[in-house]
Amino acid sequence: MRRVAILGVGMTKFGKHPEKSLVDLFAEAFFEAFDESNIELKDIEAVYYGNFVGEMTDGSANLSGFIADEIGLKNVPAIRYEGACASSSVAFREAVRAVSAGYYDCVVVGGSEKLLTAETGIGTRALATAVDAIYEMVAGLTFPGVFALAARLYAKEYGIPLERLREMMAHVSIKNHRYGAVNPKSQFYGKYGNLKVEDVLNSRMVCSPITLLDSCPMTDGGSAVIIAEERLAKDAVDTPVYVLGTGQASGGALFRQGRDIVKAIPRRKSAEMAFREAKIQPKDVDFVELHDCFTIAEIIALEAMGFFGYGEACYATEEGATSIDGELPVNPDGGLIGKGHPVGATGVSQIYSAVKQLRGEFKWNQVEDARIAMTDTLGGDFGTLVNIILGVE
Amino acid sequence: MRRVAILGVGMTKFGKHPEKSLVDLFAEAFFEAFDESNIELKDIEAVYYGNFVGEMTDGSANLSGFIADEIGLKNVPAIRYEGACASSSVAFREAVRAVSAGYYDCVVVGGSEKLLTAETGIGTRALATAVDAIYEMVAGLTFPGVFALAARLYAKEYGIPLERLREMMAHVSIKNHRYGAVNPKSQFYGKYGNLKVEDVLNSRMVCSPITLLDSCPMTDGGSAVIIAEERLAKDAVDTPVYVLGTGQASGGALFRQGRDIVKAIPRRKSAEMAFREAKIQPKDVDFVELHDCFTIAEIIALEAMGFFGYGEACYATEEGATSIDGELPVNPDGGLIGKGHPVGATGVSQIYSAVKQLRGEFKWNQVEDARIAMTDTLGGDFGTLVNIILGVE
Repeated sequence: MRRVAILGVGMTKFGKHPEKSLVDLFAEAFFEAFDESNIELKDIEAVYYGNFVGEMTDGSANLSGFIADEIGLKNVPAIRYEGACASSSVAFREAVRAVSAGYYDCVVVGGSEKLLTAETGIGTRALATAVDAIYEMVAGLTFPGVFALAARLYAKEYGIPLERLREMMAHVSIKNHRYGAVNPKSQFYGKYGNLKVEDVLNSRMVCSPITLLDSCPMTDGGSAVIIAEERLAKDAVDTPVYVLGTGQASGGALFRQGRDIVKAIPRRKSAEMAFREAKIQPKDVDFVELHDCFTIAEIIALEAMGFFGYGEACYATEEGATSIDGELPVNPDGGLIGKGHPVGATGVSQIYSAVKQLRGEFKWNQVEDARIAMTDTLGGDFGTLVNIILGVE
Repeated sequence: MRRVAILGVGMTKFGKHPEKSLVDLFAEAFFEAFDESNIELKDIEAVYYGNFVGEMTDGSANLSGFIADEIGLKNVPAIRYEGACASSSVAFREAVRAVSAGYYDCVVVGGSEKLLTAETGIGTRALATAVDAIYEMVAGLTFPGVFALAARLYAKEYGIPLERLREMMAHVSIKNHRYGAVNPKSQFYGKYGNLKVEDVLNSRMVCSPITLLDSCPMTDGGSAVIIAEERLAKDAVDTPVYVLGTGQASGGALFRQGRDIVKAIPRRKSAEMAFREAKIQPKDVDFVELHDCFTIAEIIALEAMGFFGYGEACYATEEGATSIDGELPVNPDGGLIGKGHPVGATGVSQIYSAVKQLRGEFKWNQVEDARIAMTDTLGGDFGTLVNIILGVE
């Protein structure tokens, strides 16, 4: 297997894009990535595309071919991946494996989604399709509910009073909004940079104990990265960012996972797979971009990935361990909460941020001396988990 | 790269399954495939799943993890592919490449879809998401319209009076219904086995010149195959069916393809890729299972795949060249028109039929001495094209 590296990265500003289609959003991100890749269009041999619910929000399925055509890649193999919020992370992992195996030397992978400008009601309904449709969605379960259940179970399993846990969860929101507010690509650029614990606790209750400021927003956006085998990458760019390891696992419907949801077993398996492939330990990771769809989700993710013991990440967060000057900076780009969450684009947008950091170009919030980054994306209620480890030499 | 073979195949009866979910339909097909594979559940390392519009018909996205869990494959990587009608063919090709490269030794790949029992109106609306949403769907273009345009353009390009072409198209329907009527897995088993040209011409007009009997039906169904690297396959089963070659290509929106649609350029590229990989010529293929969503689609496919010259497959069909006793049997399982078209399951159901034929087990309509089979699936209006070549030793 060959080493695979990232040549160029691009993403639209996250936010509201009523005038742009899913194809437009991908194309805009693609050309930003292409411009810094120093290759020719004809070098790109395939398109790997992540999208969650284009059928529902835009009346658009089967988009990968249209996307390839739009960006000038006529007739190349083009594949759409759907794994809810992990859609473009799944696409990225498969793209890396295809290049590593030698099927292609260079491909583009990315995603796009429109949830903020979707018809009223369609966004929530569309997101709910990622939970079990037969027993759970029909009972009214949507994602704030999933993570409200997770927060309550977390409090119970680890003997933490719920109000106390809420305060610790608030620190996730404060931190990620602080970082999102200084990232020009963020949906909330210039906003919510100075939240206090009370602001989070007292913001509108969505599903107790999850408030509006515990939650990521609905977002439109696109993301894309161009990857290539090592030799081509070294010829093309000064600082190729290498893919050191990847992992993926799946979980059944929430009612089958039961109490395991706070341990996020499939995420642990996925993260272990990535660490094994990268031949590193959690302690070797310099920073993390992870799936903070809700504040409690960041805490659960940090534990399942092996960075903190079960029941410990909430305290570590409150103490600042996950801040940019802490032992493990988490979501220095703002995460889903601060940067936004255009579902199908999210996974590759984490890679965008990680690559910019590893090149030392994330000037609005640079992690110092960062050499190894890890990303984490969660699709649905622990249905699809993907982890990616990236590094520079 | 390692040779990859098919161990076992399964499919539900195609038709109406109001009581079964997308997960149920996949699981039923899976266990039929598993029962003839002579392996243990733990040998299966990943799930490749094709589905087109579960979000819209069943409120279900992110299904691959739920499917893995349902069939007992806890936490394995599980991926959903969407490429409209080619969804499970894309999944199959990617699965084959992953096993060939050594990422896995054994995986399951399949698909499921529910269109016949979908809420009234949703089926047609869902299918229409495979055309361009911005310029075409909003203008009222649905798939009978796409192929009505194709038939009219075909008649014009090749100087054939439209009424004459309609008679030749009718022979596709007559043949495929004749074969579908004797295939117990077909939606139309026992029905329409003795159609005449007049029956097709005089059936209800859907979009001129396409009549109801020129069209495939709405269908519910599931399909699954288990594939493995050569050594494992030879240990497990007596007659492994080998994957000799695969191809994939894409096309842009219909309005960008213009007059090229009757030449189906991306399909030609996909087929050529498959022939090149298999190191064979069209003349070496013993029979074909192809994407006859409408009668004209079979004619266009046969030409683009290289079996007949452009403008010639209509005459060959009328003369019987594509019948089971002709020079190139086409759709001996009934095809989409006779067997049914549960979109996400269709591609792997073609592989099911091809494998049964190559093993000499397709007793209701066996192609004699069949050693090499080719499948063809078309996603949308020439957006996603996949071809697979299979063979026995």
